[in-house]
Parts: sequence; structure tokens; C-alpha cells
Amino acid sequence: MAQDDAPAPRTLAELAGIAGGRLAGDGSIVIRRVGTLENAGEGAIAFLANPRYLSLLAATRASAVIVAPADEGGTTKPRIVADVPYLAYARVAAALYPEARPRPGIHPTAIVDPTAVLGTGVTIAAHATIGAGATLGEAAIICEGAVVGADAVIGARTRLDANVVVYDRCRLGDDVRVYAGAVIGADGFGLAPGRDGWARIPQVGRVVIGDRVEVGANTTIDRGAIDDTVIEDDVKLDNQIQVGHNCVIGRGTAIAGCTGIAGSVRIGRDCRIGGAVNIAGHLSIPDGTTVGGAATVGSTIERGGAYSGAFPLQSFSDWQRTAVRLKQLDRLVDRVKALEQARRIDAATK
Amino acid sequence: MAQDDAPAPRTLAELAGIAGGRLAGDGSIVIRRVGTLENAGEGAIAFLANPRYLSLLAATRASAVIVAPADEGGTTKPRIVADVPYLAYARVAAALYPEARPRPGIHPTAIVDPTAVLGTGVTIAAHATIGAGATLGEAAIICEGAVVGADAVIGARTRLDANVVVYDRCRLGDDVRVYAGAVIGADGFGLAPGRDGWARIPQVGRVVIGDRVEVGANTTIDRGAIDDTVIEDDVKLDNQIQVGHNCVIGRGTAIAGCTGIAGSVRIGRDCRIGGAVNIAGHLSIPDGTTVGGAATVGSTIERGGAYSGAFPLQSFSDWQRTAVRLKQLDRLVDRVKALEQARRIDAATK
Amino acid sequence: MAQDDAPAPRTLAELAGIAGGRLAGDGSIVIRRVGTLENAGEGAIAFLANPRYLSLLAATRASAVIVAPADEGGTTKPRIVADVPYLAYARVAAALYPEARPRPGIHPTAIVDPTAVLGTGVTIAAHATIGAGATLGEAAIICEGAVVGADAVIGARTRLDANVVVYDRCRLGDDVRVYAGAVIGADGFGLAPGRDGWARIPQVGRVVIGDRVEVGANTTIDRGAIDDTVIEDDVKLDNQIQVGHNCVIGRGTAIAGCTGIAGSVRIGRDCRIGGAVNIAGHLSIPDGTTVGGAATVGSTIERGGAYSGAFPLQSFSDWQRTAVRLKQLDRLVDRVKALEQARRIDAATK
Repeated sequence: MAQDDAPAPRTLAELAGIAGGRLAGDGSIVIRRVGTLENAGEGAIAFLANPRYLSLLAATRASAVIVAPADEGGTTKPRIVADVPYLAYARVAAALYPEARPRPGIHPTAIVDPTAVLGTGVTIAAHATIGAGATLGEAAIICEGAVVGADAVIGARTRLDANVVVYDRCRLGDDVRVYAGAVIGADGFGLAPGRDGWARIPQVGRVVIGDRVEVGANTTIDRGAIDDTVIEDDVKLDNQIQVGHNCVIGRGTAIAGCTGIAGSVRIGRDCRIGGAVNIAGHLSIPDGTTVGGAATVGSTIERGGAYSGAFPLQSFSDWQRTAVRLKQLDRLVDRVKALEQARRIDAATK
Repeated sequence: MAQDDAPAPRTLAELAGIAGGRLAGDGSIVIRRVGTLENAGEGAIAFLANPRYLSLLAATRASAVIVAPADEGGTTKPRIVADVPYLAYARVAAALYPEARPRPGIHPTAIVDPTAVLGTGVTIAAHATIGAGATLGEAAIICEGAVVGADAVIGARTRLDANVVVYDRCRLGDDVRVYAGAVIGADGFGLAPGRDGWARIPQVGRVVIGDRVEVGANTTIDRGAIDDTVIEDDVKLDNQIQVGHNCVIGRGTAIAGCTGIAGSVRIGRDCRIGGAVNIAGHLSIPDGTTVGGAATVGSTIERGGAYSGAFPLQSFSDWQRTAVRLKQLDRLVDRVKALEQARRIDAATK
Repeated sequence: MAQDDAPAPRTLAELAGIAGGRLAGDGSIVIRRVGTLENAGEGAIAFLANPRYLSLLAATRASAVIVAPADEGGTTKPRIVADVPYLAYARVAAALYPEARPRPGIHPTAIVDPTAVLGTGVTIAAHATIGAGATLGEAAIICEGAVVGADAVIGARTRLDANVVVYDRCRLGDDVRVYAGAVIGADGFGLAPGRDGWARIPQVGRVVIGDRVEVGANTTIDRGAIDDTVIEDDVKLDNQIQVGHNCVIGRGTAIAGCTGIAGSVRIGRDCRIGGAVNIAGHLSIPDGTTVGGAATVGSTIERGGAYSGAFPLQSFSDWQRTAVRLKQLDRLVDRVKALEQARRIDAATK
């Protein structure tokens, strides 16, 4: 499973500088790729982020490693010593593997409305469509089959991967990355119960996305009903997340895959929301909150902190008993109360 | 965050008539857009659906408002008084923002099989594909990159948004809306364990969808194994819902995003299923049932009513203790039983 | 709801041979389609897999049935008697409904990079795109709007349905089926917290998929961060599953829809994972494990077996009480402990 060589090999000394770390050992060796401690070979650099894997550090066949000062004793290899090895690794990897940019230009099969405004150096790939009045910033990349709706705005260097759909009037900032199959700006789920069934509520708001946001594959972000749905700068959304209409997600918040967020939720800044979390509508989560995976947030969280709420896993037979007992929990509390009461009477009458 | 002007401004008096509400105040003012009580400005109409927000009504800068009779005293603005303000708002918004319809016609990059049957006034956008023997009803709209399989039937005025896929032989009724990325008619998950691993079960049923159904972005509805998967009239499905093979979803039922429905489930009419609900296979849910978000429906629900089952959220440390205690719940019941038994003996021997 | 006739009708005797079952009754009748016991009519064959439905067997209007030896007494119809009727049915249905293969050839609107390598008999449909250096095996099928990235490898007879996206360098084996809208090889969710916000970790691994794998509609499988994400032979993934970077899913494992798997999870061979299961990162599940639907797997499972963990459904009011009690569970245990202690003191001092 050896990696292919990286497009931009570097000496270890160069990488130490890029990583902002201290070089130890031979800085002249050329690093050709990254690897895991387990699988790295000749020419690769690996990193140790967790002291739990110190034994892998000792055994690795990587040519160089990135370690924290406290773990430096675990290796004699040429190395980069950095306070946060994972961050140093991020910089090293970004240097070795600069993102490939497709050549600017418009593929002959792309359909670009004559009223669209295209920045310099944009790439529009095969079978992409750019709607009337849409704007693409400088060096924006629209991949195969992606659809940019009328009057939508796509920022500079923002990239829509294959088959992404951005509905009309939505706005994406600069340096945004949207992975394949994501849908931005479909109508929110707005229905009013009428005499003859459901009446649709026109969704006239937009989706407004800041700079440096990531939107994962097949994630969906609905447009606002009246005001906009807002994703602030530096928000990172993993795959298959659903963001309901009129949500506001604060700057720097990261949300893992499969999380569902109902309408009109306000999530603060710098939150970390685990995967498969379910967030009910019309509630708030304060800045800096962490929510563990698979939890349900059913009402506003008043104070930042770490929250969880996943049902524990058990063997099937234990779980069956637990589930039955759980349904009887209210009665169990009454039984304990009765025992306490009886005990008080006993004590009083002894 | 002011809205753009609506395409079809109206006087307040006209809108009162459309909404079926009572006009109070100056009916001659022109309403140019909708707004929220908080953010609306000059020319906008806002609504108050929940008395909890009465203070916003007092402070709003909207030019007109929609209120219930009981809340009318909270404003002196020109207004529409209606029993169900949200429904009145739905009608007002629909009048101000009539849905834009693309011009009829077939884009030169669309591929339409010569055996397909096209109703009058259909729109087929760039890079869409219509398979052999497919039928499009009058004024149907097939957006960019959407794929209609062989022998599929798409009803009148039904709209498939960008990159939707409808597999062969599936049938959609009239006035259906399918949002981007939805997939209708992929094979159900039908596998038989054989000696040499899994044997695939051909999925020969279809998906049959009624009139006025909505299918949210990236939602998937599998075709039936033998009989059809059926979505009756007026069903509303939000984004990222999964409907397994041979489900039947009854007329008027609305299901919120991220809900997963396994195979052969029968959901009755006029149900409301919350978001991220998980429904196990081969069970029934009766007409008019409400299921709260993030609940798991593991067996047939015998009687209509409101059901829930989400694990409550706690601080991480409290949750850790709860999870441990939950696993010991069966033993806890035994301990209480022992105490009750001891108490009975004590009482008998006193 | 009668099925259309199958493309390849057969006599019952032929089908009994194909199914590996014993023929009873008139083997010369021609079977034209499959049906359910309830809805089958003249010319159809139905099957009974579960003795619970014996009454349907007696009442069916199917022309022939497939039954287990133990249930043969329940019918006098011409029949195929087989130990595992569902498996026999799978073979019968596969014979009657051989999968339609599109004609080989490259649609004039498809864009195939001149450096791509195409096996004999490939089909590339309208608006599909094949990237530079990509390889398509013999008789591979790339449907409408599907995108194969640069240097990707698609095995023999593997089929990508409409609008599927396979990112660069990913490898799919032979006889793989990927349903519409699935995304294979988007970047994993790799972020390192830095001083100026999140630093992206380049995801340089691939997705490597074995033979006879199925990937459901709108499922997403992320590429590895350094090493690859690996889906072994005969794995079956339903719709809307998320597989995080660097997961390894063992041969023959089947996973139902809406399940989310975080990064670096190792799932063994021949596991069965229910729908809407949530699996936290960096854990292992041993061979042959079953996990019930909607469970959360929060840590490594040490021993194979059946596991569950879904919150039981209750009426809304009962659930409200249960949820409150659940939060007080730790205190309840303390109260029981206090009662036990008091009881011990009582006993000692009596």
C-alpha cells in the first residue's frame, strides 16, 4: 500500500522550516511522500500524535518522523520536533502535495449563460452549467456536471466538485470547497397545514456561505424561508449533513458526518459537533460547545461545555432487558419512593 | 439582510383577499416583499404565528403584518387578520413570489430518446437525459443533468431539479417536485445469503408516486422487490430521507429530514414523522400518528397518537454515569425487588 | 399492481433446475413473472420464506410457488421445493429477469480523455466523463452524467449508475455496482486545529474497492488520509451510508442504509450492520458481528455476537417521564444503595 510519490518532494530541512518545527538529524534527506508509522517506507515521513503508539515509532521504517518534544526519545531517526505534531504534519503534507488545479478555461460542453460574469482564470469543466446573472470569482473551479443557479455568486478560488448543485441567488465566499453531490439552496421544508392539505411556503431566503468553508459530499443546506441560512467563515461540514432553513452556524464550527440540523437552529462559534447528531429546530447552542456523536439536542443548550447522549451498546439480550426496564423506569422510581417512605415510617415507629 | 423585491407586488387589500383574511388599516399600500418581524422593513409584510413573539410585533418595521384575531391588539399597523396566520402567510407569499417557470423547450445538449413521449410545453434543460419509452406530462420540467430512465412516467407540471435520477419504469404523478440529487427507483437492498456469499434478488417492482408529492434533496426511494414502493398523493418528504423497497406511505403524511425507513414499512395517512427517525422493516404505523425526532420505531404501532424515544442530552460526565447505570438497570430492578421482599418479611415478622 | 412480463420466461421445470430445488407438479407450465403470494396472478411464481404466512400460501393465485419441504403440505400448486426458498427465489428471479445491459459504445456527448484506457465492450453513456489516465475494464458501464476521475480504475463489468462520482486514483474491482448519486473518494474530514483556525490535512490515500461490492444510492466513501480506505470483496452497502477515511470493511459484510461510520474503523468479515447505526472512529468490530439498527457503537467490540442499543419508543408523555428519570438514574442508584445500607443496619441491630 505504498503511496505514490508526492508531486513536490522536499528535503527534511525544508519541511522542518515549513512545519515551524525543530530539525534533528540529517536535514538533507529528500522526503518523497507521507506514510503512517506502520506502513511508511524509504523516502516517507510519518508522525506520532499520540504517545499510545510509541511502539510504532520505534518500529517504523519511515525515513523521517514528526514527534512532540516529549516523545523525541522514542526515535533516532531524522525528525521534525514540533509541539503539535498533527499540525506540523498538516503543513508538511500540504507542502508535499499541493492541490492540483485544473487548467483554467471553459470546456466546450459547459453551458454558460451569456449574462454570467466570470472572473479571470476560472475553470468550468465538462457538462457544467452556469445560470443567468451568476458570478464566478477569480480562479473559481466548477467541476463536471456542477450546476450554478441564476444570480448565484461563487467566490474567488472556490471549488464546486462534480455534480454539485447551487440553487439560484445563493452566495459562496472565497476559498470554499464543496464536495461532489452536495446541494446548496434547495427549498426549506416549509409547509402550512390547510383545509385541502399542505400549503407550500415559498422559500425566498438564500444560503449565504462565508470564506474557507468546506461542505462535504452529498451534504444539503436549505435556503431560508424569509431571511437567509448563514454558514459563517471557516465552518467545516463533513459528508451527508443536513442543514435546515434559516440555521446560522458560527465561524470556525466543525460538524462531523450524518448530522441533521432542523430549521432555525443557531450554532455558535468554534463548536464541535460529532457525527450523526440530531438537532431539533428553533434552538441555540452557545459558542465553544462540544456535542458527542449520535446525541440528540432537543432544546437550547444554555452553557458551553461538553455534552453527550448516545444509548450505550449491549449484547442483544441485555439490551432487550434494558429496554423493557427503561420503559418501567418511572414505576421503579415510585417503588423506591415507597421503600423510602416505609423506611421513614419504620424509623419513626421503632 | 433585506430581501430582494418580490416579482409580483400587490396591495395589502389584494393580499387580504388572497389570504382569506380580514383587512384592517390602509389597504392601498403596496407590499413588495415578505420579511420576518425582526428584519422586515419598508414595503414588507411579516406575520406573527406564535404569541410568544408579541414583543417583536410591537417593534417591527414591517409595513404590514398578518396576525390572529387574539393578537390584533398588539399592533396598529395595516394588517391582515386571519385565524391561522401561518396559512394566510403561505398564501400571501405564494402570490408575491409565484414560482418562476423556465421557458418551455428542449436544450440542444439534452438527449431525448426518439421513442420518448413529450407533453406540450415541457422544459428539458442542459445535459438532461430522457430514456427510451419515457413519458413527460404537459409542462413537466426536467432540470440540468437530471436523468429519466426508460419507460418512466413523469406527470404534468412535475419538476425534477438538477441531477435528479429517476430509474426506469418509475411513475411520478402530477405537480410533483423533486429536489436536486434525489434518487428514485434504485434497487432495494435485497440479498439472500447463499453458499458462495450474497445472492442478489432482482428488484422488479417500481416506485409509484402520487400527485403533489415533494421529495427533498438527496432523498432516496428504492424500487420494490416484487410489488411497488408507493408514495401516495400529498406526501411531503424532506431532504436525505431513505425509503426502503416496498414501503407504502399514506396520503398527506409529512416526514422530516434524515429519517430512514427500512423495507416493507406501511405508514398511514396524515402522519407526521420527525427528523432523523429510524423505522425498522416490516412494520406498520397507523393513520394520524406523530413520531418525535430521533426516535426509533422498532415494531408496529398499534394505535395512533404521539410517540417519542430520543435519548436525553446531558453533560458529558453525567452522561457517562447514566450510560453505566443504564447498563446496570436490570440489576438495579433486582436490588429493588430484594428490598421490597425484605420489607415484606420484616413487616410479616414484626 | 400486476408485474410486467419478465424478459426471459421459463418453464417451471427449467426454473427448478436453476434454483437447485425439487420439482413437484406440472413442470411444463410457463412462468412469465414473479409475484408476491398476495398479489401474484396467472403465470406468476411466488415464494413462502416464513411459515407465518402459510395462510397466504393457501390463498395465492400464483401459478406456481417455491416452498420449504416443511411447508409443502400447505399447497397443491405446481412448485419448487427448496431448503432455502428465498435463495431459490433469488435464482429464479435472476433467470427470469436477466439484467438489461446497455449496448456497448461511447455516447457522442461523453467526454473521454484521450489517455484513458478502455476495455472491450465498455458502455459510456450521455454526459459521462472519463478522466486522464483512467482505466475501464472489459464491459464496464458508465451511466449518464457519471464522472470517473483521473487515474481511477474501474473493473470489468463494473457499473456506475447515473451521476455517480469516483474521484481520482480510486480503484473499483470487477462486477461492482454503484447506484446513482454515490460519491467515492471525496476527501476525508481531516482537520488540525491551528492558530489561525483549521488546517486542512491533504488526503492522499485512495478508496480501494474489491469485487462484487455494491454501493447504494447517495452513499459516500471517503478516501484515506495517508493509507487507503478499503472495502473488501462482496461487501454490500445500502443507500446513504457514510464511510469515513481509512475504514476497512471486511469481505462479505452487509450494512443497511443510513449507517454512519467515522474514520479509521475496522469492521470484520461477514458482519451484518443494521440501518442508521452510528459507529465512532478508531474502533474495531470483529468478524461475524451483528449490530441492530439505530445502535451506537462507541468503542471496540471485543467478541463477535449480536449487539443492540436503540432507545425504546414510548407514548410522548411516557417518554417525557422516562427521559427525566433517566437523567436522575445515577441518583436513583444512590437512593437504592442508601436503602440497602439502612436495611443492613436494621438487620444488624435487630
